[in-house]
Amino acid sequence: MAKFMDVHHGMAGITAEQLRMAHNADLAVEANEGVHFEQAWADPESGTVYCLSEAPSKEAVQRVHERTGHPADEIHPVPLMV
Amino acid sequence: MAKFMDVHHGMAGITAEQLRMAHNADLAVEANEGVHFEQAWADPESGTVYCLSEAPSKEAVQRVHERTGHPADEIHPVPLMV
Repeated sequence: MAKFMDVHHGMAGITAEQLRMAHNADLAVEANEGVHFEQAWADPESGTVYCLSEAPSKEAVQRVHERTGHPADEIHPVPLMV
Repeated sequence: MAKFMDVHHGMAGITAEQLRMAHNADLAVEANEGVHFEQAWADPESGTVYCLSEAPSKEAVQRVHERTGHPADEIHPVPLMV
């Protein structure tokens, strides 16, 4: 298992409710892929969303996001953290 | 006070020790600006570093990062989080 930070662009105007619904959708299906989405942060002005997850692979992260209708634009493993 | 996610590019090969030293340098001077750097994550392969902070403004975040020699390439307010 490893940590990943994924980034979504083009989400300008996203609301707190929409972020919560998207996150809950991910939580509802993530177990099949052995993924856990821990936190997410959104900047509605630039339309950027960051999701922090623990997962077996980048591909597993993307499969969850695709299944819930919001594929990530970038997925980075982040093995280092402080 | 607000939350910010800032992003550094071009950090390929960053080590755990370098990430820790950079974060500690920020912590040592952040109080002057009313900023607190909470967490940071790094992808040494793509050379991307993400820092999560609480700060009065984007400019205050950048002033701390500049003072410690690693200005951010992007700084996004992230008012929404789950």
